[in-house]
Amino acid sequence: MSVVTSVEASAEQPGNRSASVAELIGRTRSLVAPALEAVVHRLSPELRGAIRHHLDGGGKYLRAALVLLSAAAVGADEEVGVPGAVAIELVHNFSLIHDDIVDGDLERRHRPTLWAAYGTGHAIIAGDGLAVLAMQVLLDEPTAERVRAAKVLADATQAMIAGQAQDMASERRTSLSVAECLEMEAGKTGALLSCAASLGAVLAGAPQPSIDALAVFGLNLGIAFQAVDDVLGIWGQSALTGKPVGNDLRQHKKTLPVAIATSSPTAAGQQLNSLLASELSDWDVEVAVRLLEESGARDETMAIGESYLRGALDALSRAQLLAGPAAELAALAHYVTARDR
Amino acid sequence: MSVVTSVEASAEQPGNRSASVAELIGRTRSLVAPALEAVVHRLSPELRGAIRHHLDGGGKYLRAALVLLSAAAVGADEEVGVPGAVAIELVHNFSLIHDDIVDGDLERRHRPTLWAAYGTGHAIIAGDGLAVLAMQVLLDEPTAERVRAAKVLADATQAMIAGQAQDMASERRTSLSVAECLEMEAGKTGALLSCAASLGAVLAGAPQPSIDALAVFGLNLGIAFQAVDDVLGIWGQSALTGKPVGNDLRQHKKTLPVAIATSSPTAAGQQLNSLLASELSDWDVEVAVRLLEESGARDETMAIGESYLRGALDALSRAQLLAGPAAELAALAHYVTARDR
Repeated sequence: MSVVTSVEASAEQPGNRSASVAELIGRTRSLVAPALEAVVHRLSPELRGAIRHHLDGGGKYLRAALVLLSAAAVGADEEVGVPGAVAIELVHNFSLIHDDIVDGDLERRHRPTLWAAYGTGHAIIAGDGLAVLAMQVLLDEPTAERVRAAKVLADATQAMIAGQAQDMASERRTSLSVAECLEMEAGKTGALLSCAASLGAVLAGAPQPSIDALAVFGLNLGIAFQAVDDVLGIWGQSALTGKPVGNDLRQHKKTLPVAIATSSPTAAGQQLNSLLASELSDWDVEVAVRLLEESGARDETMAIGESYLRGALDALSRAQLLAGPAAELAALAHYVTARDR
Repeated sequence: MSVVTSVEASAEQPGNRSASVAELIGRTRSLVAPALEAVVHRLSPELRGAIRHHLDGGGKYLRAALVLLSAAAVGADEEVGVPGAVAIELVHNFSLIHDDIVDGDLERRHRPTLWAAYGTGHAIIAGDGLAVLAMQVLLDEPTAERVRAAKVLADATQAMIAGQAQDMASERRTSLSVAECLEMEAGKTGALLSCAASLGAVLAGAPQPSIDALAVFGLNLGIAFQAVDDVLGIWGQSALTGKPVGNDLRQHKKTLPVAIATSSPTAAGQQLNSLLASELSDWDVEVAVRLLEESGARDETMAIGESYLRGALDALSRAQLLAGPAAELAALAHYVTARDR
């Protein structure tokens, strides 16, 4: 416990932290990208072009980095986590490809989404191929650890799908409580981050308490991450997020700021409630953003995000982990929940 | 070998055969439907309604029956095959739900398709949920046999997706050779039937030669089945198939009759080639059907189907299997490749 705390202290200077995260992401990419490219080559030639279009857009390898660090944190080589890192990136990209169709989003990472470029049919099938490939990667050599990792990943994928289904259902509802919204975001984003943060430890055959602590770290981090994402979806700059601002509001998505504002007793919150009852023009979106700000929902969402980040770091500090990788996990958690990530 | 042959002989009377198949399907349904219902209940409540709409349409439990029989054929109880039967029906229904979106089909089993009733987004997510659930069912209790079954099923699912991708790509091509078409159909339909016909034996821990023979039986049966399906898609009655006739032609699908006709040196085949170069009106569809008939493609497709059926039955008779279940597999093969199925 003290180990993590002391390393956390040394990572406190923001300069150190982002340098270390940049190094970590670079290291992850160099280990995982070639392996990912090799397995994508197993897909049918008809799908590869579309999938490369999607993958070439980049991606932060955040989930892959969590997998590698979770292997290292329990004393294994980062390489032990590579099949898990590849599998989790496949599942993540499958979900992005399908979510973009579901949400009708035209752009991701400043480029046309897969369905916008290749059509809905290709995007559905390409996503399906990636989802199945994730299972194949882990079941190729069915050691006890890989089989367990496959089961953990399948369960997390199902939880993510359930969160996405809740998200879709919420668009047709007039309001969503903050608790319901947090439950939905725990599924939509938390489940896969929880899986990522523990999958390396599963592959390393770590004791269950370490795996559990890492899973709790990842789940809390996921909710913190989604809270920041919700704020950026409303107040972020398109140039940084790679997506048009205001989309979430226009689609009547029940994000955390909206759930907070519409269930608050403030005048702004009540005005927002009426506004969201119908279609939103561009002007309405601007008004909605101002009402969200006035209701205090932006600050409250950031506060909730910070509290989940603390929960994540607490879980990390309670676990029996190696100091170096644990400090990198903490630095990564700070990085992905920063407003300017 | 002689065992199968003699039982095949006793199943030769068509009356016996269809009575036995009806009994088999009934038995399969009573074993598999409750287990399927139980696992669907594990999906998020937001998805269950849509999935029940789809499953309530019926379905022949053909793949499930193959799984149970393949367990029985290697000497195990049919119950041993149930997790595999449930998993394969989940994968089959996932593929139907997504294919209906891809093909823009509005009706299946005389009812609106899932996407037509609930929207594309729900249909995508519902299909995803079923695909992942199939893996969860097998990995819930990761015995060596179930893990192997999960791997076999994941590989078959990927081959099916590749076949579907080839099918989509072929719609944009002016022609497809008969060999290319058969390869595509081996993936699209053969891969999952091959998996179904061997999955029970995998779960029963049967020796590899028996598993392989059953897989070859299923692959050949799948191609024979698809050949009949292609014929019914053009000459079948909507009332029996549950789908509008002429859709395949209108969508420029390269089915076996089309591949045969357009690569034949007949005048009818060459006229069909020109006709298919542009959009088809209802009148054009009628002309295309007549040209297909004139080119001999209908008879040729049925002949190819029969030859694959013989290949399937040969594989069955070469395998070391129990006589009773082997005879039921043979009867089922005859039944699903009959024109009036």
